[in-house]
Amino acid sequence: MIALKNLIEIDRSADTPIYLQINNALIHLIKNGILESGLKLPGSRSLAIDLNIHRKTVVAAYDELISQGWIVALQSKGTFVSNELPEVNPGGNLEGGRFSRNAPFEFNAIESLHRSEPSLPNGLTLDEGTPDIRIAPVTEIFRHYRSIISRSYNTKHLGYGSFYGDLSLREALVNHLQETRGLRCSVDQILITRGSQMAMYLSSQLLHRNGGVSIVGDTNYIAANLTLEHAGAEVMTVAVDEKGLVTKEVEILCEQHKITSVYVTSHHHHPTTVTMSAERRMHLVELSRKYGFAILEDDYDYDFHYQRAPLLPLISIASNGNVIYMGALCKIVAPAIRVGYMVAPKDFIESAGHLRRVIDRQGDAVMERVIAQMILHGDLQRHSRKALRLYHTRRDHFCTLLSAELGDYLNFEVPEGGMAVWALLNKSLSWTEIARSAEEQGLEIPNYLNYDREKLGHNGMRLGFASLNLDEQKRVIGILKTSILEQMASF
Amino acid sequence: MIALKNLIEIDRSADTPIYLQINNALIHLIKNGILESGLKLPGSRSLAIDLNIHRKTVVAAYDELISQGWIVALQSKGTFVSNELPEVNPGGNLEGGRFSRNAPFEFNAIESLHRSEPSLPNGLTLDEGTPDIRIAPVTEIFRHYRSIISRSYNTKHLGYGSFYGDLSLREALVNHLQETRGLRCSVDQILITRGSQMAMYLSSQLLHRNGGVSIVGDTNYIAANLTLEHAGAEVMTVAVDEKGLVTKEVEILCEQHKITSVYVTSHHHHPTTVTMSAERRMHLVELSRKYGFAILEDDYDYDFHYQRAPLLPLISIASNGNVIYMGALCKIVAPAIRVGYMVAPKDFIESAGHLRRVIDRQGDAVMERVIAQMILHGDLQRHSRKALRLYHTRRDHFCTLLSAELGDYLNFEVPEGGMAVWALLNKSLSWTEIARSAEEQGLEIPNYLNYDREKLGHNGMRLGFASLNLDEQKRVIGILKTSILEQMASF
Repeated sequence: MIALKNLIEIDRSADTPIYLQINNALIHLIKNGILESGLKLPGSRSLAIDLNIHRKTVVAAYDELISQGWIVALQSKGTFVSNELPEVNPGGNLEGGRFSRNAPFEFNAIESLHRSEPSLPNGLTLDEGTPDIRIAPVTEIFRHYRSIISRSYNTKHLGYGSFYGDLSLREALVNHLQETRGLRCSVDQILITRGSQMAMYLSSQLLHRNGGVSIVGDTNYIAANLTLEHAGAEVMTVAVDEKGLVTKEVEILCEQHKITSVYVTSHHHHPTTVTMSAERRMHLVELSRKYGFAILEDDYDYDFHYQRAPLLPLISIASNGNVIYMGALCKIVAPAIRVGYMVAPKDFIESAGHLRRVIDRQGDAVMERVIAQMILHGDLQRHSRKALRLYHTRRDHFCTLLSAELGDYLNFEVPEGGMAVWALLNKSLSWTEIARSAEEQGLEIPNYLNYDREKLGHNGMRLGFASLNLDEQKRVIGILKTSILEQMASF
Repeated sequence: MIALKNLIEIDRSADTPIYLQINNALIHLIKNGILESGLKLPGSRSLAIDLNIHRKTVVAAYDELISQGWIVALQSKGTFVSNELPEVNPGGNLEGGRFSRNAPFEFNAIESLHRSEPSLPNGLTLDEGTPDIRIAPVTEIFRHYRSIISRSYNTKHLGYGSFYGDLSLREALVNHLQETRGLRCSVDQILITRGSQMAMYLSSQLLHRNGGVSIVGDTNYIAANLTLEHAGAEVMTVAVDEKGLVTKEVEILCEQHKITSVYVTSHHHHPTTVTMSAERRMHLVELSRKYGFAILEDDYDYDFHYQRAPLLPLISIASNGNVIYMGALCKIVAPAIRVGYMVAPKDFIESAGHLRRVIDRQGDAVMERVIAQMILHGDLQRHSRKALRLYHTRRDHFCTLLSAELGDYLNFEVPEGGMAVWALLNKSLSWTEIARSAEEQGLEIPNYLNYDREKLGHNGMRLGFASLNLDEQKRVIGILKTSILEQMASF
């Protein structure tokens, strides 16, 4: 009779029920061939005494093992390790008791999507233009969150809800979009998404899962290229100049190919921050009507403009319904608050809603209602204005510093809006080198590689100024300067 | 000179800035051909007087219109509606001033995914097994939410985070899954998703975007079929009996075809609620090793069992890494709290993470941390036990009523766990009829059509008991009885 008490360790302080500890231990012993088929196990009473636990606990563990087919109880003979054990290769692919790290089955890894995971910002980071989460309107979020989730409030919205998004938020947005963007749409032309990325994913899938050509700028927001290509689009590029996407080139491509979609960040082109001119906008809308393509308008930072009232979005001036408009509130509230929206013709919104249903069923109805309340109470607008003033100051301070300290090494235009400066580094210098040396000085630059997919050699990078206070801006630019001088010294 | 004051209405109480109201009105008038190209517009001063507003406001509106190309200001001549207007077909596809309801561009509507939207429960509803949101642990959620979002707490997690999910939640789950399921995995084998539906979507995409065969039960959770088929899988079915999926039939299919995946709800098969037997589990794991397919284990209601300790999930007894385990916390906390997870080999989790990144970038880090805190403080476990006791009572009460009142018209087994009873209605009766007449009596039955996709004619439906208190159960069963008697009277 094997002395199990030496093989089973019981940890009374652990949260794992003791019967489950015994169960796990015995399975492990059987799998690893230490307890062989046919081996007789001690009776529950004697094992209970050996392990100094209650007999019921052992019985529970044995019952579980019997029900799983590991052991069998033979009438009046006792309990044995089962003879009909499946061929368990001892240890299997276990690693330190864990299961396989590499899948033994086939799957499509979609390597094209693999990117290194962004490290969570700790310490000084030069991002590509994100809001300062330190000014996020947490008090307001918190107040509305409480009023919505508190017991007194009816809890209907804690159940399953609409996959188009919470109705109160869609209604609030209908008004908000008209007031801020002159965009007139109805509730059934809006879908609430998880940030604008989901709007981009849904649209790309609906437009391109059977292929088709999509046109983007030859410098472009890289996530958009990835999303379009993943959906099945063949991505073609056109030039981007100081007036934005060169629509004449779009027209030429339309004459040569059947174009399914054109992706634009009309308010501030990503990454170059240039604003698409009124005449180019008109031309693109006209082309969309003539050639029947969809305009994917990603208006990621409409709310951040410093120079003058922004041009209205394409969707507000296009009556023909060729525009799919994508926006997000993450940039206003906080990136982690994943609430965005898309506006498009009703039939497109319907299909997008049904697709989103198999992706994640529905959005976070509670958070959606919080945002709706923030719009209705004007909290969103107030915070947006407050952030605008702050970022305006930071833009001016950053640009002044930039030209004073680094004017000899890079060129840039003061951006009319947004949260980043598009800086073109002298060709003799390398952002990669700068990023490396900056890291040694305690400054992270995560995104320096994302801007020249087409190998145009513009040597540009987005420098986010909005998330840095004035002192941090000084430090960042100081570190950049040191890195550049280092690099030049090494020539 | 046209009298614009009669055509432009200004609403001083509206939130839309007046300059934008004028801007919108004029665009509307031009688009609709009321103001024609070349028409001279009144000077800003006279229009300001006509409309009784400040002149600056008119100038701002005109500037916006000029920048958009609608009007032109000619030196010393005045302001005119532009002659180079794009061909705007008056009104375009506008409906009541709104843009097209039907897209003028081509897209793939993916009709196969279209389902009628579930109406939000108002009044009495017989669901297919959802938790009672009235007992959701809102106080605990709220407490942790406050402590996480309050200013005092560092706000790092309000920025962009990991697309694998918040680390603190992944760490909490590693322990929680071992304690509750004997499942041993590491942080890099877990991905946090939006409910188990997203885990199912990601897995299906990775496994089947190039096709392949997936095996499911011939009665099955319909959303799983949809998700697999949408991803590109050819779905084959095997029988389900009182021991769950008939694995012998799986083996036969494996000999005839290359099988990529097998989908199981092992703890309680959806919809029939039967528990997969230990021997079938062993057999399926063995087959997965032999034929190299992935087991998609959807353990949607592991935490709800009334009879005895549940069998451990397949992933806990399979050392070979063929199992992709999907779980959700929505059923414990509340459906609207969209937090779920998948456990799989590391390389699979990595690919799933990169795919999720283009879908919605990342999860709701704040909510993920709330759930992590609830696990660490034991709130989740406490609530789970509380709900278990309540649902146990409700199950017994519901089943007693059901056999007493409707025993002559339908058959069912008392489910060992879960939140629903699988009721087989006498063949002579129709659930559709019952649902129709029940609705007249104020009882909604949304899901009666979801269970017999393969036309087996079992005439079964899931009756959710967990969300109904004892009084509501009486009313529901009373209404069902009336509906049935009505139907029989009509024979």
